[in-house]
Amino acid sequence: MAIHYPSGQKPAKKVSSAIPTPHESIYARRGMSLEAELNESNGYYLATKRAVVHKKPTPVQLVKVDYPKRSKAVIREAYFRRPSTTDYNGVYHSHYIDFDAKETRNKRSFPLKNFHQHQVSHMKACVEQGGICFAIIKFSTLDRCFLYPATNLFAWWQHFTGGGRKSIPLTEIIKDGYEIEYGLNPRLKYLDALDSFIHDHQL
Amino acid sequence: MAIHYPSGQKPAKKVSSAIPTPHESIYARRGMSLEAELNESNGYYLATKRAVVHKKPTPVQLVKVDYPKRSKAVIREAYFRRPSTTDYNGVYHSHYIDFDAKETRNKRSFPLKNFHQHQVSHMKACVEQGGICFAIIKFSTLDRCFLYPATNLFAWWQHFTGGGRKSIPLTEIIKDGYEIEYGLNPRLKYLDALDSFIHDHQL
Repeated sequence: MAIHYPSGQKPAKKVSSAIPTPHESIYARRGMSLEAELNESNGYYLATKRAVVHKKPTPVQLVKVDYPKRSKAVIREAYFRRPSTTDYNGVYHSHYIDFDAKETRNKRSFPLKNFHQHQVSHMKACVEQGGICFAIIKFSTLDRCFLYPATNLFAWWQHFTGGGRKSIPLTEIIKDGYEIEYGLNPRLKYLDALDSFIHDHQL
Repeated sequence: MAIHYPSGQKPAKKVSSAIPTPHESIYARRGMSLEAELNESNGYYLATKRAVVHKKPTPVQLVKVDYPKRSKAVIREAYFRRPSTTDYNGVYHSHYIDFDAKETRNKRSFPLKNFHQHQVSHMKACVEQGGICFAIIKFSTLDRCFLYPATNLFAWWQHFTGGGRKSIPLTEIIKDGYEIEYGLNPRLKYLDALDSFIHDHQL
């Protein structure tokens, strides 16, 4: 029996519930941090020879290290140091790429306090040398993730440090950024988003 | 009074003792490790906007971290992990560059056991992506330092791991490598050697 919908509405197409969109297929990756997603993706890209990208280790200041006999060195006192660069860099299609990854639980904007001056300065220096820099910004509550070009970030950062707006509206990130699709392998298809960015900017 | 040298030998030119060659001007840098020389040089290159190159932090496996109140986190137990990449990478004139730095006290050859398989594999993956990879090899007893292309290293590495010769003769490093001059600023002018390498290989 045909169902008659009021006011001309049509039923949602069945196909849309059969094939999950990127925003719907969240179950498999629930609880996975952006860092873990990126590490997995970078491992996949390395194995398939698409790119060589690694996360840099967290720098620590060693104070006391024991060297027990017949056993490996044990760090007994050390402190975290502030890194002078972003967390990720590597090489893709002869391009130097460099980025940082940030998550927010906000739904409408990304707070700029998540960045630090040294990260922005590092990305500026890399862009001046011809590198491709960007941020990967994940709205974890919305389960949406974007590649956001560094040059756009620089403009917002300047406003922010000059006493202006403290966050980048999601609408702006949608406008200037490139949405990253989720998949099985790799989890975060960020090189596809990067391809679009490279194409649009003729890099 | 003129000195007559036997068998047609001429006295060494006086100018050679007045202007120190790179191999003679060692006093200022005695005791400085190759790593310290490179860090200083990279700082200079960064400040003068010639390149952005950083040493990667040594990766550590954290086991126990204390978070005392009103004070910063203290790492109480941790272990060194083997890095999966080389120690240095960055961007120079739109090129991705990646290298490792090694010292030897040998005078005639460089022992290949100073390299590890993961470093060679990483450099191979980077070269395949269009990156520029090399080793910086210092003969500390001779006070001579070379940029040695990764592709040459790969050939020696293959011999070595196949049971062949265990070291690269200095004569081969002189032939295929690029000698790096010492200076005041930067201490190790390795980008000049890299320029020659890039020029010769039309990269």
